[in-house]
Amino acid sequence: VLPTQIQRAAGLHAGLSGSGVDVAILEFSGEEFSVIAWRGIDYTMAMRRKVQSLYRPGVNGVDDISLMNFVLGEVFAESLAEVCDRASIPLSSIDIVGSSGQVLHHQPTPKRFRGQPIRSQLVIGESAVIAQRTGIPTVSDFSARDIAAQGQGRPITAIIDHMLFRRKKVPVALQQISAVTTVTFLPPEGDLDGLRAFDTGPGTVFLDEVVRRSTSGTREMDEDGGMAQKGKVHEGMVKMWLSNPFLRRQPPRSAGPETFGPAYADEFCKDASKRGLKPQDVVATATGLVAASIAQAYRRFLPVWPEMVLVAGGGTRNPKLMEMIHRRMPGTEIQSVGDLGIAPEAKQAVCYALLARETIWVRPNNVPSATGASRRVVMGKIDLGSDVL
Amino acid sequence: VLPTQIQRAAGLHAGLSGSGVDVAILEFSGEEFSVIAWRGIDYTMAMRRKVQSLYRPGVNGVDDISLMNFVLGEVFAESLAEVCDRASIPLSSIDIVGSSGQVLHHQPTPKRFRGQPIRSQLVIGESAVIAQRTGIPTVSDFSARDIAAQGQGRPITAIIDHMLFRRKKVPVALQQISAVTTVTFLPPEGDLDGLRAFDTGPGTVFLDEVVRRSTSGTREMDEDGGMAQKGKVHEGMVKMWLSNPFLRRQPPRSAGPETFGPAYADEFCKDASKRGLKPQDVVATATGLVAASIAQAYRRFLPVWPEMVLVAGGGTRNPKLMEMIHRRMPGTEIQSVGDLGIAPEAKQAVCYALLARETIWVRPNNVPSATGASRRVVMGKIDLGSDVL
Repeated sequence: VLPTQIQRAAGLHAGLSGSGVDVAILEFSGEEFSVIAWRGIDYTMAMRRKVQSLYRPGVNGVDDISLMNFVLGEVFAESLAEVCDRASIPLSSIDIVGSSGQVLHHQPTPKRFRGQPIRSQLVIGESAVIAQRTGIPTVSDFSARDIAAQGQGRPITAIIDHMLFRRKKVPVALQQISAVTTVTFLPPEGDLDGLRAFDTGPGTVFLDEVVRRSTSGTREMDEDGGMAQKGKVHEGMVKMWLSNPFLRRQPPRSAGPETFGPAYADEFCKDASKRGLKPQDVVATATGLVAASIAQAYRRFLPVWPEMVLVAGGGTRNPKLMEMIHRRMPGTEIQSVGDLGIAPEAKQAVCYALLARETIWVRPNNVPSATGASRRVVMGKIDLGSDVL
Repeated sequence: VLPTQIQRAAGLHAGLSGSGVDVAILEFSGEEFSVIAWRGIDYTMAMRRKVQSLYRPGVNGVDDISLMNFVLGEVFAESLAEVCDRASIPLSSIDIVGSSGQVLHHQPTPKRFRGQPIRSQLVIGESAVIAQRTGIPTVSDFSARDIAAQGQGRPITAIIDHMLFRRKKVPVALQQISAVTTVTFLPPEGDLDGLRAFDTGPGTVFLDEVVRRSTSGTREMDEDGGMAQKGKVHEGMVKMWLSNPFLRRQPPRSAGPETFGPAYADEFCKDASKRGLKPQDVVATATGLVAASIAQAYRRFLPVWPEMVLVAGGGTRNPKLMEMIHRRMPGTEIQSVGDLGIAPEAKQAVCYALLARETIWVRPNNVPSATGASRRVVMGKIDLGSDVL
């Protein structure tokens, strides 16, 4: 029911975009592992709209959240089964599942209640459903324990970045470019205290929303960065948008699904429209802002400039964005985690599989220097498997 | 971090009333245990109003639910610490905590989503906060796994009633009289398949709401049943209200915080007002309805009439209600669980401590014949303790 040995682990990652879930299956051999299957599975449009509607404070209800918690549990379990099925991996060969859940709300700065400062996060995607459907012990709700220890509960996978990507002699940055963008800075000595991790700024949710608004909804995303390629970056606008309070804030800092979502894109497009920008220029400028906010975060908040930047996430598939990041970081080696054998889109799902393994092994898996927590804790709630029943 | 031996366990039970949390500390010696401390701790009025406001579908928000999940985690941890402190029990001597959480929403009959029937329940009171503040492994969110196995997720403590209260030779009913009323019928053979458990009907939340409406808010409850004592039961009205769809429904059946709450009391008082009942008659009739709905449930839905009824819950402190129950069950022996060494108000908290022990011991702890689940499962999510850190 709780595995004594872990040969195979599954990771489920549902990003802040609320658009789907990434599944990765890992196989271990000694200290090494390989990703033997992975796949990003989109929610249906109806599901996507429903999930995204839950983000808005004060307009949704306890009945909807109750329902969608169990619905997403089913979706996650089905997605895992589908990935295993396509790769001819028996579910029963998997020892643990780590599930990110779907973040509905993120409140990293304390609100006062009864005079007490309270940080919180609300995550759904019922893990009991995953454990029951698959029979596999399932670890979920990692951030809650970090928040209980005065952390922000994000970024949550920094310890795994440290395990996988640190180098002995040079400082490395792991740059996640997905719904939002997140950096994990790994100092050469390899000590956790020197690690820094925080959300750098807007990401693909922002870009997609800008594309939708700039094409009257005829395009969902800037395929291969083609629109940005044809447009011209308005540098003055980028500069102004870099002064956004979040982007100037000292870490620890973390974004929720609403921080760089539709409302933020609305404001951006209104400003672009006032300036009379053409659609392709709006998209180019938005892409430029994503690149510039990453570079600005490195300049302001990393202790030294990294010698190498490893990139991961769906945003790495946008060559124009990658080119802009290159240009804003002259002389820095930029490499995809794909070159290390982990598909860029699967990286977070891989991290959740490994986070779950740390939980089962009773090893602390948060990073206080990243989340601001007061101490190291073992994050995750465990739902038992069902192989004894 | 996970205890290998369990000497002491704590149970936390927050009832459907949303008015506070009961804490019980159990000490084991072999197969036996004793309750070495217990206490009901009321929420502050502000907290009570806030929690109760979350029950209403569609009017509260994801931000409120996110916040209150962590606030209630703090309240539960503080309540546990307070009970231990008053009884001079070191927190570190407690091996596990079982926490019911606060049920915000209960959807026992399936709603369709994506063509799939989905049951759900939403429970808050962050267990990671309890585990982090106390250092004790904490088991929570029991119902989710039963719901994942096609159960209703309520009544959830039937297995413990079976462990504690079954008799070798006679059928026994354990009647819980608190926010709502719930029966667990224990057949003499002691087999789980013959067990029946379901919510019998309205309870103290309904009574308190009726008292409030009948006294223009000057009284919060019918202290010692004094108002009901002075009033006269309108039998015709009781009879009519017994035909409520919930009360006629075949088990499995279970109520949520809204089923017999303020809206139900509103309707009842409107009907009483149309009939011209005096305030004490309204309260007497409401009390009569609670008693009659229990007796009707026994008559219709128990396989045989129990030889003994054991009563538990705060409602047992209302002598008029107890007298009415007696009168509706002539010849049946009625005894309080207090006579067995468990304070009636502490009984559910005791059950949650024992449910948690079953989880840690990896023993199935739901009862399919009670909840309608398709199979026995190990309910509960485990947050690790922190004694290794």
